[in-house]
Amino acid sequence: MSNPATFAVFRKLAKQTPSKMVLLILDGVGGLPMTPGGMTELEAARTPNLDALAAISSLGETVPVLQGITPGSGPGHLGLFGYDPIEYQVGRGALEAVGIDFDLRPTDVAARGNFCTLDAQGNVADRRAGRPSDEVCQRVSALLDGIAVGGDSAQCLVRPVREHRFVLVLRGEGLSERLDETDPQATGVPALDVQPLAPEAVTTAALFNEFIAQAKQRLADQAPTNGLLLRGFAQYPQLPSLGDTFGLKPAAIAVYPMYRGLAKLAGMKILDAGKNLQDQMTALRAGWEAHDFFFIHHKYTDSRGEDGDFDAKVAEIEKVDAMVPDILALKPDVLLVTGDHSTPAKLKSHSWHPVPVLLHSNVCRTEQAPGFGERQCAHGQLGTVRAVDLLPLMMANAGKFEKFGA
Amino acid sequence: MSNPATFAVFRKLAKQTPSKMVLLILDGVGGLPMTPGGMTELEAARTPNLDALAAISSLGETVPVLQGITPGSGPGHLGLFGYDPIEYQVGRGALEAVGIDFDLRPTDVAARGNFCTLDAQGNVADRRAGRPSDEVCQRVSALLDGIAVGGDSAQCLVRPVREHRFVLVLRGEGLSERLDETDPQATGVPALDVQPLAPEAVTTAALFNEFIAQAKQRLADQAPTNGLLLRGFAQYPQLPSLGDTFGLKPAAIAVYPMYRGLAKLAGMKILDAGKNLQDQMTALRAGWEAHDFFFIHHKYTDSRGEDGDFDAKVAEIEKVDAMVPDILALKPDVLLVTGDHSTPAKLKSHSWHPVPVLLHSNVCRTEQAPGFGERQCAHGQLGTVRAVDLLPLMMANAGKFEKFGA
Repeated sequence: MSNPATFAVFRKLAKQTPSKMVLLILDGVGGLPMTPGGMTELEAARTPNLDALAAISSLGETVPVLQGITPGSGPGHLGLFGYDPIEYQVGRGALEAVGIDFDLRPTDVAARGNFCTLDAQGNVADRRAGRPSDEVCQRVSALLDGIAVGGDSAQCLVRPVREHRFVLVLRGEGLSERLDETDPQATGVPALDVQPLAPEAVTTAALFNEFIAQAKQRLADQAPTNGLLLRGFAQYPQLPSLGDTFGLKPAAIAVYPMYRGLAKLAGMKILDAGKNLQDQMTALRAGWEAHDFFFIHHKYTDSRGEDGDFDAKVAEIEKVDAMVPDILALKPDVLLVTGDHSTPAKLKSHSWHPVPVLLHSNVCRTEQAPGFGERQCAHGQLGTVRAVDLLPLMMANAGKFEKFGA
Repeated sequence: MSNPATFAVFRKLAKQTPSKMVLLILDGVGGLPMTPGGMTELEAARTPNLDALAAISSLGETVPVLQGITPGSGPGHLGLFGYDPIEYQVGRGALEAVGIDFDLRPTDVAARGNFCTLDAQGNVADRRAGRPSDEVCQRVSALLDGIAVGGDSAQCLVRPVREHRFVLVLRGEGLSERLDETDPQATGVPALDVQPLAPEAVTTAALFNEFIAQAKQRLADQAPTNGLLLRGFAQYPQLPSLGDTFGLKPAAIAVYPMYRGLAKLAGMKILDAGKNLQDQMTALRAGWEAHDFFFIHHKYTDSRGEDGDFDAKVAEIEKVDAMVPDILALKPDVLLVTGDHSTPAKLKSHSWHPVPVLLHSNVCRTEQAPGFGERQCAHGQLGTVRAVDLLPLMMANAGKFEKFGA
């Protein structure tokens, strides 16, 4: 069932109530045993608070996008926010821009940039410029910011992200995002030109190439950050907001820019999340009265999974578990705990495996599950549901949906 | 989510790797206990090899088309090959034609024919002409082959299948498949005329009726095969190939023509499957290097289910089980064992019941299941998935999909 049809139904049924919903995301929480028959990260973690909650909650699993599809952070979160990630495909440039709180306009085209190292022949020697410090990234980005192209008809805005990464935004009229990237995905060869992928993108491609030529001059003496690669050209996606679709006053409490950016796309208010889970709890308490839906994001379960560090991922899960009593003390009407995808330490990468889900409310079916892990969830009351179904389930458990039809 | 959108995603994510995938189909494997509380065919079968594999695999169930829908062989297999059988409905005539290696052209219209027995009044006395021998089928088909109609503007090609069944192909210009069948589904009444179901099919209907009139004369002295019934008028369906959608070099190892035909529709290379499972293993070994996806089809589980012979179906399952070590010896990266639908001996027919699935790879979640049967599968890690989701899951487990989105 596609979003336009379901959104129309949700919009009609949604009602505002004082009930509060918390979506607690452990990024990449789903896992695999390191050896066949062993325990996953979540199964191995000591999670007394989540285990106790599991016994009085509905458990299940969620498929972030489609069976077999390994999602990036963008599709993984869009699904959790109720958007079908197949229907709403957001380019990396736009994600990166909103993720650093850049005020992207609908007519802008954003790209994700990498500083790279060029050798004497102009070939790419290091696609990440030796991972420079954030300070270098900031200094070199400033050198490029404000370059005008197309006889001053368009402006190039450059913002540092971290290490070798920056965001480039082309601001002008009649621009198109239908452009191919310049990263050759190899060293010893030059960067590619920006190529239009559609006739309407010819002018935009020329403007980006003009930027690249000017940028090269400004970077000439800045080795190892003396070149740049552009990827993920994208305009700002116009998504229906959660306020509009579900009648919510939603808030996001995320430490990492990317996840704040995704929440902003969904129309959430961005609260000051500080630097860690303690700060995020403070933000949750401070925002409790003003909002009715809270997206809390913990990044490091994913990071440690990507490192392949099983034990460190376990430790991150345990940190989140320790926070659960504080959340419950606020008496949310609905608490849903899951991830945006699996990141098994065994694979050192995101994966397609379904993600454990715990849904707690005082109107959910329960089954006295002995804990919160992949095995319990695979056999849970909720069954296996697509991520886009979770927010509607939260709405129902919070009493925020009217009956459909007479 | 409909195929055009998901196929676009799969096409973007698919990558070619050396990994090998085997789809082992026991046709109609899903079953029912003959008496309440008893064992199904699969549960009753002694399957030591599949049971051992189940303990280190993900189990689940698959719904071939939709819950409650009993599929024919066509929709059952199209789902397994990743095509949504609701979106891709292939007529029986086209299936039958490709199943006998007939080179059907896009402009042809094919029909499935039955020889029948007409009585002195011209009424149908036996809809299957007493199930004649294959030799009679061949001789009588040859009598009808090459009849010209429409003042030689179109040609009728007739090929024997087996017993009372043949394929009729009308070859000409501007033909339409929108025709109603001539089988009255009863005896003691005449065969129906071919009726157009759309204005553009009026001429085609007249051409088929002209064929029927000429055929009647040629069959007049051929009782009991002195009449014919036409069903399943269909043109050749143009499906996106598995090579195109999933970047595969797929091969089919099927003894029965119908399943080779279905595999051909999906763009698979047809390997010489010989006459039995031993020949099929030989074909698998011979084709192992040149292909990366193998569809192995065993028909007789379905045949014995349709016979209502529980024990004989059990024996067929055990034959396939005995072949499993030989397949594993080739070290496939992914082995998926399931059926295209259920054929419970108790019902003597195809049924809508979900079909057991076993998915084995070294990156699947496992649960030490004590065996491979309906009960274990109903509570398995995979949950209940639609058949169209299985090939994407195999792709993921084989490492043949890139990450979706950033």
